[in-house]
Formats: sequence, C-alpha cells, structure tokens
Amino acid sequence: MAHCHRLWILTALWFVLPALSVCAQQRYVLTSAEQNIHQERWRLNGGQWSVEKKTLHGGKQEGVDLITIDNGVLEIDLIPTRGMSIYEIRSGDIRLGWDSPVENIVHPGLIDLESRGGLGWLEGFNEWMVRCGLEFAGHPGTDEWENAGGGTTTMDLSLHGKIGNIPASEVEVIIDSDAPHRIRIRGVVYEKFFYGPKLKLTTEVSVVPGQDSFRINDTIENLGTQDQEFQIIYHANFGAPLLGDGAKVHAAVKSIAPMDRHAAENIDNYATYLPPTTGFVEQVYLVEPLTDENGATVAVLQNAAGDRAASMHWTPEQLPYLTIWKNTAATADGYVTGIEPGTGYPYNRKIERAAGRVPKLAPGQTRQFTLDIGLHRGQENVAAIVDAVKSIQGDRQPVVKREPEAVVSGQ
Amino acid sequence: MAHCHRLWILTALWFVLPALSVCAQQRYVLTSAEQNIHQERWRLNGGQWSVEKKTLHGGKQEGVDLITIDNGVLEIDLIPTRGMSIYEIRSGDIRLGWDSPVENIVHPGLIDLESRGGLGWLEGFNEWMVRCGLEFAGHPGTDEWENAGGGTTTMDLSLHGKIGNIPASEVEVIIDSDAPHRIRIRGVVYEKFFYGPKLKLTTEVSVVPGQDSFRINDTIENLGTQDQEFQIIYHANFGAPLLGDGAKVHAAVKSIAPMDRHAAENIDNYATYLPPTTGFVEQVYLVEPLTDENGATVAVLQNAAGDRAASMHWTPEQLPYLTIWKNTAATADGYVTGIEPGTGYPYNRKIERAAGRVPKLAPGQTRQFTLDIGLHRGQENVAAIVDAVKSIQGDRQPVVKREPEAVVSGQ
Amino acid sequence: MAHCHRLWILTALWFVLPALSVCAQQRYVLTSAEQNIHQERWRLNGGQWSVEKKTLHGGKQEGVDLITIDNGVLEIDLIPTRGMSIYEIRSGDIRLGWDSPVENIVHPGLIDLESRGGLGWLEGFNEWMVRCGLEFAGHPGTDEWENAGGGTTTMDLSLHGKIGNIPASEVEVIIDSDAPHRIRIRGVVYEKFFYGPKLKLTTEVSVVPGQDSFRINDTIENLGTQDQEFQIIYHANFGAPLLGDGAKVHAAVKSIAPMDRHAAENIDNYATYLPPTTGFVEQVYLVEPLTDENGATVAVLQNAAGDRAASMHWTPEQLPYLTIWKNTAATADGYVTGIEPGTGYPYNRKIERAAGRVPKLAPGQTRQFTLDIGLHRGQENVAAIVDAVKSIQGDRQPVVKREPEAVVSGQ
Repeated sequence: MAHCHRLWILTALWFVLPALSVCAQQRYVLTSAEQNIHQERWRLNGGQWSVEKKTLHGGKQEGVDLITIDNGVLEIDLIPTRGMSIYEIRSGDIRLGWDSPVENIVHPGLIDLESRGGLGWLEGFNEWMVRCGLEFAGHPGTDEWENAGGGTTTMDLSLHGKIGNIPASEVEVIIDSDAPHRIRIRGVVYEKFFYGPKLKLTTEVSVVPGQDSFRINDTIENLGTQDQEFQIIYHANFGAPLLGDGAKVHAAVKSIAPMDRHAAENIDNYATYLPPTTGFVEQVYLVEPLTDENGATVAVLQNAAGDRAASMHWTPEQLPYLTIWKNTAATADGYVTGIEPGTGYPYNRKIERAAGRVPKLAPGQTRQFTLDIGLHRGQENVAAIVDAVKSIQGDRQPVVKREPEAVVSGQ
Repeated sequence: MAHCHRLWILTALWFVLPALSVCAQQRYVLTSAEQNIHQERWRLNGGQWSVEKKTLHGGKQEGVDLITIDNGVLEIDLIPTRGMSIYEIRSGDIRLGWDSPVENIVHPGLIDLESRGGLGWLEGFNEWMVRCGLEFAGHPGTDEWENAGGGTTTMDLSLHGKIGNIPASEVEVIIDSDAPHRIRIRGVVYEKFFYGPKLKLTTEVSVVPGQDSFRINDTIENLGTQDQEFQIIYHANFGAPLLGDGAKVHAAVKSIAPMDRHAAENIDNYATYLPPTTGFVEQVYLVEPLTDENGATVAVLQNAAGDRAASMHWTPEQLPYLTIWKNTAATADGYVTGIEPGTGYPYNRKIERAAGRVPKLAPGQTRQFTLDIGLHRGQENVAAIVDAVKSIQGDRQPVVKREPEAVVSGQ
Repeated sequence: MAHCHRLWILTALWFVLPALSVCAQQRYVLTSAEQNIHQERWRLNGGQWSVEKKTLHGGKQEGVDLITIDNGVLEIDLIPTRGMSIYEIRSGDIRLGWDSPVENIVHPGLIDLESRGGLGWLEGFNEWMVRCGLEFAGHPGTDEWENAGGGTTTMDLSLHGKIGNIPASEVEVIIDSDAPHRIRIRGVVYEKFFYGPKLKLTTEVSVVPGQDSFRINDTIENLGTQDQEFQIIYHANFGAPLLGDGAKVHAAVKSIAPMDRHAAENIDNYATYLPPTTGFVEQVYLVEPLTDENGATVAVLQNAAGDRAASMHWTPEQLPYLTIWKNTAATADGYVTGIEPGTGYPYNRKIERAAGRVPKLAPGQTRQFTLDIGLHRGQENVAAIVDAVKSIQGDRQPVVKREPEAVVSGQ
C-alpha cells in the first residue's frame, strides 16, 4: 500500500520531477484496521537501508508481525502485534536485547494477564523494550480509589498493564523526502474501553540511514471527555554481551532509593553488575535523575571492558523517574538489567497515586515522550558518553535513601 | 460451498427445470467446523440484493469474519466470530448502531472476560446488538447456589456472559425459493462445557428483499440431560443520529422500576433523552411490558424531530422483561441507549434467581425468541408506530416503583 | 520441509545408493518457531502408511493444527496446537476417545484457564489423552509455600495446568530408516516463564507400520538453574464403545483409596462400569500400582462382552500413581472414564506436596515417561491381556482404604 511511489524510483526521478518533492514523505501502510489492510510480507529497499515486514509462524508466535529496519548500521526489530514493542537491536557485536527464558514472540491471544495472580505478563516478556501502561504500569494487586458516588472502587491490577499485549491498529512506514531521509515506523495502539480509559498511543521508532542511534517518539492522547490517569514506563532490558561481570550503569542522580529491603542492603553497589548468578534475587532502585541546562538527562550502560556502551537520552520533564532493575540471575533464568524511564516507579498504582506520581491527561490532551538511544564503540567514545553523565552530575551529591518508600508484601 | 446452484442460474432455469423447485431453499455454507470449512471471501448477488462475507484485518480485528446483507434497502453487518452479533444496520440516513469508544471489531481471542474484575466484556462492546447469556447474562459478582451435595457452590460471574465472544461453529446463507424469497443468515454457537451447561444457540437474521425491516429468530436448546438454567438479554444499542437531545423511547409499561438509586431520582424522565452529556452516569430502568390481544408488544425509539424511528416487536411470553439503559454520555465516551428485551434483568444471576427470573430448559427442550425490527421514516409513519405503542398501553396506568428492587454495591 | 528425500524415493534408491543409509532417519519439519515454519497442509505417503497434517477451520477450531498418522491399522490424531494432545485413535470398530460435550477442537487463544473459578480448562476438554501439568496438574485452588525470604507465597492454581493449552513450538515427523521403520511425531512444548518454571516437554508418539499399538515417549527437562517442582498426569479418556454397561477396568493394585466421600461409598464396585446414567456424580479412585519383575505395570479397560480392550503399559518408577476417574454420566453430558498414570494424584498441589508426591527436577535434569498403548480384539486376546494384569497382582491382596486421604470442599 504505497501512498507514494517506491523510494528507489523517486530517487531516480529526483532531478527529473522536482514537483514530486511537494510530497515531503513517502508513506506505506502495512497494517490498517480502518482500511482493512494487513500485509503478510512486505519489503522496501533503499539501497543502503531497508525495511522488511514478515509474519511469524510456529508455536506461540503464529501470526505475530515483525518489522525489521536496517539502516546500514543498526537492525531494529519491532513487534506491531505486541503493542509496537522493540524486540532487539543488532549492530555488529553489540546487541540491545537479552536472552529471556520466554520462547518465541508470543501472540497476545495466548497471554492471560490475570494468570498467576496477575503476573501473566511475564509469560510474554522477552523484548528489549516493552512499554508498561497505559491505564496502569506497575505491580499487580488491588488498587482502590474514591468513586464519583463517594464510595470506594477497587480494581485488581495486573503486572505492567495491557499496552504491551495489544496489537497495533495502524502501522505505517514513512520515509522523509528531505535529508537526512529519516525512516519512521509509526504505530497506533488503542487502549480504549467502555467505562474505562480512552487512550491512544502513537509510537514512532525512527532512524537516519548510516547512524548508530535511533529515536523513540511517542504520543499519548486522552480521547475521552474526562480527566484520565495514565502511567508509562519504558521497560528497556539489556543482557549480554553489554551486561556482564563488572558492567556499570551511569546515571545523573538527584536521589536514589531501594524498592524493597533486599535492594536496600545492596544499594551501595547499585551501579555495578555481577556475573550471571544462580539464585540472584532482583534488586530495584528508584532514581530521580538530574538534568543539564537544557533539561535533558542521560543514562549509560557500559560493558566491563569499557569499550561498548548504550545510552538513553530523555528529558525528565517528560519522564521524571528512572527505575534501575538489576536481575543478574543465571543466563538460563534471564540475565538482564532494566533501565526504565517512566512517569513513575513500578509500585502498584495505589502507592504511586498516593506519592503523586500518577499524572492525568485532560480531555483531548496529549503528552509526548522522546528517547534517543545511542550505541558507543571504543574506549574513547564510551568514556565520552560516561563523561556526559558525570558532567550532568557535576558536584551535586546524590541523596541516597536507605529505606524503601513502601513496604510491599510478596514481590 | 454452494449446496445448490447459484441463485442467478436458478432464476434463469426457473421455468425450464421446475423439478429444481423441490429444493425449497438454496443453502450456502460459509463456515462449518463440522465440515472444516471457512470461506475467507464470498459473495452472492441476487440482482436487487447481495450477501457478502469478508475477513477483517489489522489490529484487534485480525481474522474476524463479517457478513453484510444488502436487501436493497438495508445493509446489515453480522459478526460470526463474535457470537453472530449484529454490528450495524444502515439505511439511508438511519443507522442502528453507535459510536463506541471500543476500536475495531475485536477478536474474542483478545478478550479476557475476567479482566477488570469481570468487566472484560466491555473491551469488545461496540455492536448494535449483542446477546448477553447464555449461562449468565447480567452483572459480574459472586453467584451462589445449593449444590447436589447439599452444600453451597459459588461462582464468580463475568459481565453479560460468554455467548457474545464465542465464534459461531456453523454459518450458512439460506435463500427461500418461494416468494418473498427471504434471505436468512443462520449461525450455530455452542456454549457447552464439561461439567457445565450444554446450550446450543441457533441464530437467524433474515430480511425480505426491498423491505425496511428485519427479523431475529433464535433458538436455544439444552443439549444436556439435566435441567439447565439460562438467561438471554438482547442488548440492542442505539446512538446518533436516532438518539439525540429530545429523542424519546416509547414502551407499553405495566410496571417500571429503577435499577439503582441514581436511576430512581430520574425515573419521571425515563422516556426522554438528553444530548451528549459529559460525566453522565448511566440510568437503567426495568420494565414489565404490556401486550396486545395477540400477546405482542413493541418498543420504539424516535428521534427528536419525530421523523425517524426504530421499532422492536416481540412477545413477552418469550421475553417478559425489558431493560432500558440510558447512557447519554459524551460522544467520545459512548452516547447510547439500550432497549433490551430479555428473559430477565441485568442484575447478577443471584438476584435474578431469587426474583424468579432465571428460566430453565429441560433436557432436549428448546425456547425460541423472535424480534422484528422496523425502521420508520416521516412524521406520519413515526406517529403511527408510536400510536401502536399507545394503543397497547390504552388506559392502563403504569405502576411506577420509586425504589430499586435490589441495592447493589459498586456498579 | 523434508530434511531428507521423500521415503518412496529413498526406498526406490535403497540398493542403488547405500551411502544414503548413513541418514538413519528421515526428518520433516511441520512446525518450527525457530525456523519460522508452519505447514498449512502436508502429506507423506509410505505405501501402507501415511502421515497427514491439516489446519482446521471454522468456529473455535479456526487455525488449529491436526496431524493424522495412519499405520495401516491405527489412525491417530495429534493436536500440535493443544500441547501435542492425542485427540482420537481409530482402528476398525475400536475407538480410543469419547464424545465430550465440548464442540470443536478448541484453539488455546479462546481458552481462559482462570474462567469459572479456575475450571476454564474444561471448555476445551475433549481429547483421548491430554497431559496435565507441568507446573501444576491437579485441582484448582490456592497453593501456598514458604518462599526464599521465609514468608509464605500463595498462588491460585487452575485445573490441570497449562501444558494442554500451549501450542507446540517445534513439530517434526521422523521415519526410521531401519526396520521396523518406526514413524515418530515429535513435538516440543515450552512451559517457560520469567520468574517461573523453565520446563521443556518433548513429546513423541510413534507407531510401527501394521501394528495395533503405539507408544508415547515424553521427556521433561528443567532448563532453569534451580530445582523445579513439576507434575504430569496422562489424562487418558475412554468412552463408548469400549466403555459401556458392564465394562471393566483391570489394574494391579497395591493400594486403592477413594478421592472423596462419594467415591468412598462406591469403592467396592470401582472396577465395573454402569451404563450412561443421568445425574451420575464422578467417582475418583487413587491407586498405587504393583509391578512385575521388570518394574512394569499394565492397566486394561475391557468392554462388557470381553472381546475388545485397550491396555496401557508403563513403569511406576516413572509414573508411580494411577488415577481411575469414573464419569459414567449420560452420553450427552460426557460418558467417560479416565485411566491416568501420573507423578501424583489430581488433588491440588498443596495436598500433593504435603503427601510427598510432587517431584523436582534439578537444573538440566530430565525425566522420561514411556507409555505403550495396545488394542486387543477377540475373547482370547482380551483374556490374555487381563491375565497379564492378574499375573502382576498374583496373590498380593490390595489394600483398600475406605476414607479419602484429604477432604476437599467443592469438587
């Protein structure tokens, strides 16, 4: 469903038919519930780059869509069927992603979020980045609030919300006609219920051909007519080879707190990682990031050798909280760390609301979230991006809280 | 899978091969689990009418079947994948249907009825008419009853039951050979479980070419060997343009009661509708309809101008109770009213059973339900159908109950 | 996806190209999530035998895979989409299988195991043999255990576990090159969750051309790095015509106990069956089988006439417990008996654990389970297999327990 002609034709005609440049973007619809479109296979070749769409088959992944962007430097896998999650990024010997014990890219039709006491989300969890949210984004358990009638409404929440298991209704590929000819994959995921939230998530993952970075640019809109709470956490997960014994996370920290008592005991070592450790129990740290003069911050995960790193850049005005999830369990159990900017922390929404970390959208209001992810190679480049974090920190001392904010039974 | 030849061939051969008329109907199988048939696309043209089947693609509707009957006057969309629900009826500037906040026609594989405390049904709710039932049809919550052993069995019910999210096992199109050549779409939906009900629902939606009315003719059969409770509510939902500021519902009322205290406060205005109203809280009224000398009744929804209306005709012997659901919320939140004949009201089955409104089917027993839906254009025709309601009412005064029968916490 | 050439070609070339016999098996991949393969239709003809794969359509079975092995004597239906369950075996007038009230072979995407208070599994239950397990295999209800932190973890289990509703990730057909040219259908089903079990089930159903028996040969492997509890029960179900008024089950019994008080009242008649009986309430008996000198045991179901029987052979070292489930309800409600070797009984895991019947797998450890199923025709052959049971029993008297081990409310 090419709305414009194929790029390589356009390129050939570039100087011949300048009038065409009025069309500032080429758009290709891969999926559209509105237009009743679903491309089983699709490919766009741009010479130095390509975008490919295929449908996965076999086992739990039967019928799952996968889009792979190759910009010549990075290969990025997107999963429209799973809320536009990002499965993996590959670039030479660097991989953003991890080896989850979860096999296959699981179709949401096989996921029961209510399973295992609200932990069913874990049965599909194997992406580099999955968005938690939008109605609720944290731990399972009973939330309660005062309703319109003055009584108390209760609702059992499931872990990390629904958006990661909702198929995108609209998916398109957009190629900017103007340099640097950014390649954009856009998806629309609706989390709308009758007598519930009416939220529209428009996701965009984009790359510039030849660059070793990419951008996530999302918009959440309240399509309802009443104020609507929402939560979003960018649950980005890194395994080997970036993660390893002696790998480090760098963040500009205004304050840091342990999520529970177990994390509290290890808070002084929050920034360094163990090798895969059988029986390791997760440690979660809750960070308020510092910002530079432009209101931006950056978090970095570097390997032990200090010659490979990944960086995440964002503005805490959009995403004020950062969760660092350390799960350096054995490889077979999932050796992974999460670096997770969010509108809040992953406590149950009841705790988050009480702490003032559950934002609302007025009717028609939108909120935008931009994250830039970079890959860094070589001692010098890694040192440079780590210095960028240190330069934001400057001489400001982190406030280290030694007690968890909330004590939660169970997990 | 045409069991008979195509109609246009038959028509051509009508006088040549009279022996063929022994075949009093032409039958076409669109879906059959028994015969392992599923038509991805199918179309039958009858000159002035057509029946078309397609499979929907994209987002939550991937793989959902849709059948559209066009009788020259009405277009009716049926959803075999969602229990033979009726998505919409279009006829010139009249539409039966509504603008639900739920996007796409959602595949049942993506619905979790247990979600949100048993309210998961609402995540797929956007049809003009969805049947509630068959094992249970009302509000979620714990039902309890005495079991065979003399103890108490409890079961958590989910909102409005399962039948609207069960794909039809058998779907066929039937064209009567005899005038008026009624076009029938028949579906079989099984709600059968081991250690549970064994109910078979055979649905039929039919039209006569050129007429501005259609018929729903359903049969429920108990395939088990023991008495089986069942419930069915025809949850028919009307939005704009029929519904609007000053629109009216007309019913022949023996008694009317509010479902809760909030509805009680507004019972004197139950018959008229507000414009879309942000923050409107639903009002539900429970009606025992009066009947004419043939045991029939009719309910009418007319627009504010009094020049467009829809009517529903049925016999209260089949469906003794009528629920009027007023939800004149903002358009984006779902501006809609339900006119819902049923075997009971939408209270939790526990309340319905105690009130004697949960019928049983003996082994092998069937119950049939027929509803005729008509569209009415012009002041005169609308006045005529409203008069039909008034004529049933006659000088019998409705009993207006001011207190709800049951007080339910939460919704 | 034939890894080797087709058998008939091989056969033709057998003497010409003896080098090919290095390839001791022919392998054909029907499904592979790893290789992104899913054969919609596939057939292999071996002259006297065949293997056929098709995809089912219509209703709740849309998209379900079915493999039929025909070895010239037996037809065996396998369901890769439902955890490699065995739907039915047909051989002349003998059928292993039953007439469940559940229609269609239900796609797991439509099953909600949490439904009906954890009884959702029953909505898809119609196979001859479905494996219960692997994390839990018994009755629903809350399990609790001491967690690593010294506290108590609780989890609501659903009936009979998940494995029967997980699609196989890898499915292949293997034909032994060497006589007797065994035909093997192998499937890999993963029950792996993050923060949960990491179990791999490799199933194999195999037949020798021309023989009236088949073998189930399964392996469960703990892919995690910590000890992992598991349970498996081979829920094999027999209906008419083998089951009937006066049919008998024969087992070599060390001890037998009723599962509940109702079963206790009828324990003296545990071995004989009633005709279809409206309102029959299930009776479950828990057996410790005796073994022969090789550690093997056998259970037999014979028809009333004593001229048709089925036998199950296994070693109690692998599967120490046998559950006999008598459910001689009316035909329409499911007239069926289960003969179910397992690692335990179908009590909730909490009870099973307390009784020491929940085994563990160390990291990387595997457990193998082999069952041989035979069909027996004619008085003489039936008498012979019944004698085999009696010969294991010898003069050892069964210990008959008259009280259930555990008293469970509800079912």
